[in-house]
Amino acid sequence: MALVAEVDKQERGPQKTGLEALARLVDDDLQAVNRLIVAHMDSPVALIPQLAGHIVAAGGKRLRPMLTLAAARLCGYRGTRHQGLAASVEFIHTATLLHDDVVDTSNMRRGLATANAVWGNKPSVLVGDFLFSRAFQLMVADGSLDVLRILSNAAAVIAEGEVLQLMTANDTSSEESAYMQVVEAKTAALFAAACRVGAVVAERPEAEELAVERYGRDLGIAFQLVDDVLDYSALQAELGKSVGDDFRDGKITLPVVLALRRADEGEKAFWRRCLEDQDHQDGDLDTAIALLQRHGTLAETMARARDYAASARDALAPFADGPAKAALCEVAEFCVERAY
Amino acid sequence: MALVAEVDKQERGPQKTGLEALARLVDDDLQAVNRLIVAHMDSPVALIPQLAGHIVAAGGKRLRPMLTLAAARLCGYRGTRHQGLAASVEFIHTATLLHDDVVDTSNMRRGLATANAVWGNKPSVLVGDFLFSRAFQLMVADGSLDVLRILSNAAAVIAEGEVLQLMTANDTSSEESAYMQVVEAKTAALFAAACRVGAVVAERPEAEELAVERYGRDLGIAFQLVDDVLDYSALQAELGKSVGDDFRDGKITLPVVLALRRADEGEKAFWRRCLEDQDHQDGDLDTAIALLQRHGTLAETMARARDYAASARDALAPFADGPAKAALCEVAEFCVERAY
Repeated sequence: MALVAEVDKQERGPQKTGLEALARLVDDDLQAVNRLIVAHMDSPVALIPQLAGHIVAAGGKRLRPMLTLAAARLCGYRGTRHQGLAASVEFIHTATLLHDDVVDTSNMRRGLATANAVWGNKPSVLVGDFLFSRAFQLMVADGSLDVLRILSNAAAVIAEGEVLQLMTANDTSSEESAYMQVVEAKTAALFAAACRVGAVVAERPEAEELAVERYGRDLGIAFQLVDDVLDYSALQAELGKSVGDDFRDGKITLPVVLALRRADEGEKAFWRRCLEDQDHQDGDLDTAIALLQRHGTLAETMARARDYAASARDALAPFADGPAKAALCEVAEFCVERAY
Repeated sequence: MALVAEVDKQERGPQKTGLEALARLVDDDLQAVNRLIVAHMDSPVALIPQLAGHIVAAGGKRLRPMLTLAAARLCGYRGTRHQGLAASVEFIHTATLLHDDVVDTSNMRRGLATANAVWGNKPSVLVGDFLFSRAFQLMVADGSLDVLRILSNAAAVIAEGEVLQLMTANDTSSEESAYMQVVEAKTAALFAAACRVGAVVAERPEAEELAVERYGRDLGIAFQLVDDVLDYSALQAELGKSVGDDFRDGKITLPVVLALRRADEGEKAFWRRCLEDQDHQDGDLDTAIALLQRHGTLAETMARARDYAASARDALAPFADGPAKAALCEVAEFCVERAY
C-alpha cells in the first residue's frame, strides 16, 4: 500500500464545490425527494425499510436524482412532478447497487459495510427487487408513459451492461469497445435517462430532451471512467473506500485495457495471472498500479474523462445561461475532479 | 426415502386434463405469447437469451400467462393486447424464479438444473433484473397505466412476501397468519394480477375485474398450499423434483405450523433442531413426514386448498357459462389435484 498516500484535505475543497452548487440549486426539491424516498421505502415487513434505509438514507451523493431535478429546472419546469421521478431514479440506482454488491461480493460501499455484508445476500436481492418495483410504482403514480418508456428501457440496458461486464471479466483479450459498451450501459444509461425525464416533465421540444440526454450520457461516461481510475488511486483509501476492487474482481477497465495493449510478454503474463487466473500474491496491486503509471494509462483515462465532461457541457449549448446551466456545468467539472 | 413411493402414471391422467382444457382454449394466443417471450428475451449479450432460455423456454406450465389469456377471453376480449401482457406476466414470474433459486440456493427446478446451478448466482440475479425490466417494457408498449399499476403493485407485494418468508424462516413460533401473508404476497398476488389485467384489456366494468382478481387470488392460495404439501410428497420425487426443500430451508409452511401446534415436547424439540438450528440428521425428513401424517396436517392443508379452489370457482359466478369459464373452473380443479 506504499502508493496509497495521504492527501491534503484542502486539495479537495474546490472539487466538492461542483456538487454543492447543484445541491444548493435543487435544495428544496431534494428535501422533498428525500421525504418521498423515506416514505416509499417503508413496508410492514420491517427488514425492508431497515435494509433499504442502510443504503438509501445513510449516504450517497444523490447525484442522479439531483440531475433529474436540475434538468427539469434547466428546461423551465416549475411544478413538483420531477420530485417523484427523481425518487424513482434513485430507487433504480439503489436497487442496482444492492444487486451489484451481491454480484461483486463487496463488503464496503461509501465507507460503510454493504447490505449484503450485514444481512446476507438473500435480503439484498429481494429488497433490490422491492425498490425496483417501488420505482415503477412512483412512475405509474406520475402517469407519463414517456417517462415509463425511458426508465424501463434504461433499466433493461443497465442489466445488459452488468451481464456484459460479467462476461468480459477475467478476459484480458477483451477490447476497449466492449469496455465502452459496459460503461455506456451500466452507468451512462441511467445518467442519460435521469436527465431526460427532467426535460419530459417540462414538456419541452424533443431537441431539448435529446440535448439533456446527451449531457447525461457523456457525464455518466466521464463519471465511470474516473471511477475506474479511482479504483487504482490513493485518494480512495483515504475516503474509507477500498482500493483495487476491480483488480481483485478481474474487471478489465480502460486503464488495464490500455496497459495490456502496451505490455511486454512479462507484463502480459502478470495481468493474465492476476486477472484471468485470479492468482493473487502480496504486492500485486502495487505492481499493477506501477504498470498503469509506467504506461500512463491512468492519466490517459482521466484525459478521456475530461473529453467526455467537455462534451457534456457542450451538449447544454442550446440552453440559456443561468443558475441551472451553470450548476450542471460545474457537475461535469466535479465528475472529473472528484476524489470520491 | 421409504415414503417416496412409485405412483401409477394412470393416476395423473385426469389431473393433467385440467390444464389441457385451458391450453386448448388459449392455444393460438399462447403460441403468440411464446413467440413474444422468445423475441423479448433476446439481447446482443449472448448469456442473457442463453440463461433466460434455459428457464423460460425449456419448460414451465405457463399457468400465469394462460390465466391472463383466459381471463381476457372470459370477459369477451377479441384483440391481441392480452398476448403482450401475458408475456409480461411470465417475465415477472421468471424473474422471481431466478431470484428465488439464488435466495434458496436451489439446484433443481422442473427436473432440470437451476440457472444458478449452471451459471452461478451472479448472472441469475442480473438476468432476473433484465427480464423484470423487459416485463415493464412490454407493459409500456401496451400503453395502459391501469395495467402498469396492477403489475407494479403486484411486483412490490411479491418482493415483500419473499422478504417476509425469509424473516419467518427458521422460526418455529411463526403463526399461521404470517404464513398466509407470505402465500398471498409471494404467490397469490401475481395470480390475481395476471387475471385482472385480462379483464382490464377487455374494458369490462370494475365488478368483473374484481371478480377475476378474486378468482386469481384464491386460485393462487390454493396452488401454493398444494405446493407446500407436495414438498413433503412422494409424487414430487417421481417427477424429478426434490422433496423436502422447504424442510431443509427451514420454511415454516402450513403443514408444519399445524403440526407444531399439536406437537408434544419431544416433537417440538425435533422441529426446533431441524428448522431453527438447521441441524439435520439422516432420516429427519422421513420423521418429519411421519409427524405431519400422524397429525393429519398434510390432509388438512389439502382440505384448505380445496376450499380456496372452490372459492375461486365461486368468484366466476357473475360470468356466463361457456368454454372460458369451464376451463378456468377446471384449472381450479387441477391446482388442487395436481401432482406437479
